Amino acid sequence: MTTYRDPAAPLDARVQDLLARMTLREKVGQLNQRMYGWDAYRRTPDGGFELTDALRAETERFAGLGALYGLQRADAWSGVEHGSGPGAEDAAELADLVQRHVVESSRLGIPALFVEEVPHGLMALDGTVLPVNLAVGATWDPELYGRAAAHAAAELRARGGHVALVSALDIARDPRWGRTEECFGEDPYLAARLTEALVRGMQGAGELFAPDKAPVVLKHFAGQGATVGGRNSAESELGLRELHEIHLPAARAGVRAGAAAVMAAYNEVDGMPCSGNRALLTELLREEWGFEGLVMADGLAVDRLARITGDKVSAGALALNSGVDLSLWDEGFTHLEEAVERGLVKETVLDAAVARVLRLKFRLGLFDRQQKPSAAPTGGRTLSLDLARAAVTLLANDGTLPVDARVSRIAVLGPQSAITAHQLGDYTAPQPPGTGSSVLDALRRLAPPGVDIRHARGCALTGDDLSGVPEAVAAAAASDLAVLVLGGSSARTPDTDFAANGAAVNAVSEMTCGEGVDLAGLRLGGAQYALLDAVVATGTPTAVVLIQGRPHVVPDTAGALLTAWYPGPWGGEAIAEVLLGLAEPGGRLPVSVPRSAAQLPVYYNHKDTEYGGYVDADAGPRFSFGHGLSYTSFAYGPPSTHGRTVTVDVTNTGERYGRSVVQVYLRRLIATTWPRTLELCAFEGVGLAAGERRTVTLTLDGELTGLVELRVAESARAALTAVPVRLDLRS
Amino acid sequence: MTTYRDPAAPLDARVQDLLARMTLREKVGQLNQRMYGWDAYRRTPDGGFELTDALRAETERFAGLGALYGLQRADAWSGVEHGSGPGAEDAAELADLVQRHVVESSRLGIPALFVEEVPHGLMALDGTVLPVNLAVGATWDPELYGRAAAHAAAELRARGGHVALVSALDIARDPRWGRTEECFGEDPYLAARLTEALVRGMQGAGELFAPDKAPVVLKHFAGQGATVGGRNSAESELGLRELHEIHLPAARAGVRAGAAAVMAAYNEVDGMPCSGNRALLTELLREEWGFEGLVMADGLAVDRLARITGDKVSAGALALNSGVDLSLWDEGFTHLEEAVERGLVKETVLDAAVARVLRLKFRLGLFDRQQKPSAAPTGGRTLSLDLARAAVTLLANDGTLPVDARVSRIAVLGPQSAITAHQLGDYTAPQPPGTGSSVLDALRRLAPPGVDIRHARGCALTGDDLSGVPEAVAAAAASDLAVLVLGGSSARTPDTDFAANGAAVNAVSEMTCGEGVDLAGLRLGGAQYALLDAVVATGTPTAVVLIQGRPHVVPDTAGALLTAWYPGPWGGEAIAEVLLGLAEPGGRLPVSVPRSAAQLPVYYNHKDTEYGGYVDADAGPRFSFGHGLSYTSFAYGPPSTHGRTVTVDVTNTGERYGRSVVQVYLRRLIATTWPRTLELCAFEGVGLAAGERRTVTLTLDGELTGLVELRVAESARAALTAVPVRLDLRS
Repeated sequence: MTTYRDPAAPLDARVQDLLARMTLREKVGQLNQRMYGWDAYRRTPDGGFELTDALRAETERFAGLGALYGLQRADAWSGVEHGSGPGAEDAAELADLVQRHVVESSRLGIPALFVEEVPHGLMALDGTVLPVNLAVGATWDPELYGRAAAHAAAELRARGGHVALVSALDIARDPRWGRTEECFGEDPYLAARLTEALVRGMQGAGELFAPDKAPVVLKHFAGQGATVGGRNSAESELGLRELHEIHLPAARAGVRAGAAAVMAAYNEVDGMPCSGNRALLTELLREEWGFEGLVMADGLAVDRLARITGDKVSAGALALNSGVDLSLWDEGFTHLEEAVERGLVKETVLDAAVARVLRLKFRLGLFDRQQKPSAAPTGGRTLSLDLARAAVTLLANDGTLPVDARVSRIAVLGPQSAITAHQLGDYTAPQPPGTGSSVLDALRRLAPPGVDIRHARGCALTGDDLSGVPEAVAAAAASDLAVLVLGGSSARTPDTDFAANGAAVNAVSEMTCGEGVDLAGLRLGGAQYALLDAVVATGTPTAVVLIQGRPHVVPDTAGALLTAWYPGPWGGEAIAEVLLGLAEPGGRLPVSVPRSAAQLPVYYNHKDTEYGGYVDADAGPRFSFGHGLSYTSFAYGPPSTHGRTVTVDVTNTGERYGRSVVQVYLRRLIATTWPRTLELCAFEGVGLAAGERRTVTLTLDGELTGLVELRVAESARAALTAVPVRLDLRS
Repeated sequence: MTTYRDPAAPLDARVQDLLARMTLREKVGQLNQRMYGWDAYRRTPDGGFELTDALRAETERFAGLGALYGLQRADAWSGVEHGSGPGAEDAAELADLVQRHVVESSRLGIPALFVEEVPHGLMALDGTVLPVNLAVGATWDPELYGRAAAHAAAELRARGGHVALVSALDIARDPRWGRTEECFGEDPYLAARLTEALVRGMQGAGELFAPDKAPVVLKHFAGQGATVGGRNSAESELGLRELHEIHLPAARAGVRAGAAAVMAAYNEVDGMPCSGNRALLTELLREEWGFEGLVMADGLAVDRLARITGDKVSAGALALNSGVDLSLWDEGFTHLEEAVERGLVKETVLDAAVARVLRLKFRLGLFDRQQKPSAAPTGGRTLSLDLARAAVTLLANDGTLPVDARVSRIAVLGPQSAITAHQLGDYTAPQPPGTGSSVLDALRRLAPPGVDIRHARGCALTGDDLSGVPEAVAAAAASDLAVLVLGGSSARTPDTDFAANGAAVNAVSEMTCGEGVDLAGLRLGGAQYALLDAVVATGTPTAVVLIQGRPHVVPDTAGALLTAWYPGPWGGEAIAEVLLGLAEPGGRLPVSVPRSAAQLPVYYNHKDTEYGGYVDADAGPRFSFGHGLSYTSFAYGPPSTHGRTVTVDVTNTGERYGRSVVQVYLRRLIATTWPRTLELCAFEGVGLAAGERRTVTLTLDGELTGLVELRVAESARAALTAVPVRLDLRS
């Protein structure tokens, strides 16, 4: 048996043996991922699949196929929907069909990597949709998220997919950005803890991936949350120190946890787009951090480099020389043979990239066994609902919530109240009718018997049509409680226009968020404000629920205000449980909520300057990072430290069970660079029965040094006035 | 004669000789500038001056005095006003009184530097007030500004002052910042050209300063215009490349032009406040750029460093070691003896700083002649008016302007129409009653005989009081033309609260701009919008004039819209001339005017990305950088290049004289870092009679390299579609 085919041979030996046998053309093929996966197959009349000429042309071009993107992707952009695309029952069969063709096309029998979007669950027909990352950030629960990530990986592998593309690294610094929903929040530590949980949950441990584990491509490396004006893939002006302090910790944590790959971001860092940024991809990531995985470029990002190199051949060379291994949809990487011949690229550099691609295929066992997928996992809906429940965040409450036993008539109002389509977020496959639960559905199911629930939509998500407002007002006026469900949407409809990379170009219908849909004013559709005002004016106690992919500016005129972010299909159920008091509002804000777009930025972890505020506005947020009310109350004792641990007594001082998220913030006292006012450095959720008290011990990161002060509190704002404890980590 | 006293000895020899004679205490004294100058004297009953115990204590403390700040400063903060402070007739006498005391207090007879604020003319009683820098930027006329700067320097020296503090280096990237008015605009090239003119105009040439020339301290080094959120002295997150491309060129030009000093900015650069930033002050400024002048810290900026060093002694040491020579008001630098003794500072480092201070004193001739001040210059008012006239910018015009001969009744309305106090900007001394001209005054004086001019204020600058609106509406309705003068104000009143460094803390009354007065929403006072709407609704043709220190958001509902920025005392005259067509609207925008605060940033020279816009807003400005209408029209021929020159034919195609500002924009084609969409790289104003045509030749900077494309146009927006010409500067 040749070495590369020998499962018992060391992995590196197999890679090198195979590499030595390959032609330049075959090597170049391994670095390309040109096709849209949905162009590789079509349904046959009998309901099976057949391969397309497009796929055959692609495998012929390089005598094989390096990677195939989105074979299972389904959405408005790809045009794949129920009936045309692969579902839970036949996706593995399709993957097998394609793989057999790829292996047959390859002289050396090299299989392809099947790369899929798994941003919040697998983006494929019948894939389990999880809440978006911003909602995950609101849970402050890495353990729960890790289990959900493991589920998503198992689902991917059960359907014949291999590699999961997952947003994790973008930090939400400007809520105008439409991809804010894909961020775990504004804080590097919170994002790092969740990224770590993601990588461990999806990948497991060890060099070889278990059959239900999937290598993760962490998106996006780096600084994409810091583009000017919250503008998608625009430039970032930030400095390296800011990059290291805020935008790189999640990537660092992901790399340490063993992430198989990262995706180079569209934006530039210090003057150079990440795909052409050798300082970032090679000097920092590989040389300083010791990353041995794969670097994938974002879609068409390599070709964009031609703007400064003059042509796509040199663009490909620049990307490869900078550290990109695998391209996505670009033409530039198809010309790497020419680039080698023209001396723009050394073959040794190209070999290193090919070796990384091959290595991942060996780690997945693609050469070794008939690709018999693992069994589909169960429990996805429960995990999705658990995350949603843990993400629902109570921002303000005058006692309106939980719903009192005396309430017998509830008006469920608003454009988000009776529909699940807008609970899902961007990068979501079409859902079968009946999937999930709206707030209205769930309240009808969960409210105590005898409670009368009436509904009126009131208005649409966008636009100024007020014709439905009177009906909603009448319903509110005739009720004891109004539940007003407002928000935005990232739901892509067939009439949305898309760029070549799938970003929305011309958001039509009701899309106000998502990739390519940036929102300057942070405002909901105009009619929603009129509806809110009119409902509140009835005098009926009102709870406003926001379903949204970013913080919007919403006045706090109602008695209670919640945000559920995009909570996923079963989000309505989670929200209803919280409204009714069947569940605790578990969420805490992973982003500061601004008062207006004019006062941006409002993130809590700004530098410690004496800045006082604008003459016409407060400079601080309306709701602080970490904030989230409970239906009970907690008291924290004075903190104490012992080595790198912080200990604090937490008591549930209220009358019902609740979960407090204990947050430890750091203030650097003596420093060599200017410190931030506060930095989150540890957290832990603790569930306590009424009256229960527990001693919580949190451990600080081993790399923390210097003379610091710690403050334990329930939010960043509360930390400003919390009793500090000093900790001297100099020495 | 000892060497240091010998005017014939080489300057460096004099410095070294004197330094060698000084005690450590005397040296430390030279690096301090602790006192507020207005505490050094008081008026005597007979109208003369006497020195205070505060001054005596200060000169005793270090056996001399290094520098004295603001001996002539007069404003609400200092409390100095007509009657209490020095004016044109007696300032030199006061300076002489203080200097004699200083020299007598010094064992070695070392005189003090008298340092004054000259931000837009000398900030002293009877000082000539010039338009603020933003208005200077709007002139695009370095030659005119250079003459005005020369005047200001001569005025300073004639009154016994020595050193001029001048804002020049801050780049206006976020109009929320209250100090936007102190910037020459958003563009590095425009700012560099004006900074160069400033330095040459004020300082002249040669090692020794002529008696009517003054060393300039260029404020602020560096990046102060890039603080987050437009927040005064907050952190800047930007990277070094952005700093070099946008925020440093003006400083580089100023250093090349021979600037005697720079002031280290409050803000941090890459994690470190400028006063403690050795990479900036020493490695870049001195070592790389070869700057041999003085570095002054901003007020109390050294003491602020104690936040990270732990105490003020080490804060002083950090600043000195980083490259600060002279402190302002700090305690930290008073402890430098202790810092030397504790080994925090080497005496050689301290000596180098002292040598720089002494060198400036020798260059000014302070040791050599009886300080007989030069005669006061004349023509200040003319220069100020010339700048104001050149700054008035016509943003929109449907033919309402210039005022038609058939107009016989003009209503002059608005809170800025009949008052000069708000035309002046921050850092302005109290003006004698009757100084300058409001728009109303000037229109009454300049309008053709028989034109009926009526006036109503309509509303105040701030607040929502609409009680005056009906009177204004009635006046508009009864007129052929309404001139509505709106705007903001940086006028400090006695009821403003000030921080220890003079920044406004609690802006009361009508202050909406200036240092410490940042404005989130970029909105005028609420009543001004109501007034505008009501006046326009009368149907009377309306010209809106904005007097402001930053671009505000103002709807373009009127027939004509002008901005004059803060045009200085005689601004009303300049505006009236333009309205009446007696002068051309000469100004061109030095900053992009945003549509709203929500879409910031809007500067034209962003990176060349494919960004399309927000879903709810355009990403581009309402009015483009470089924009400004004329009363005539111009046609540009196709540009051609020859070496580093660009040539274009400009024709006045209209029916009256006009001045076109020919703007050359650059697009980098092949580049090693990501380029901007456009970069201004040359400009020249050209005045042409009706029908006249002239060939204009512009020269590009000698450092420009690469393959580039040039576009000649009348604004940045127009350049986007202008015919390009390629220029290959590789080799």
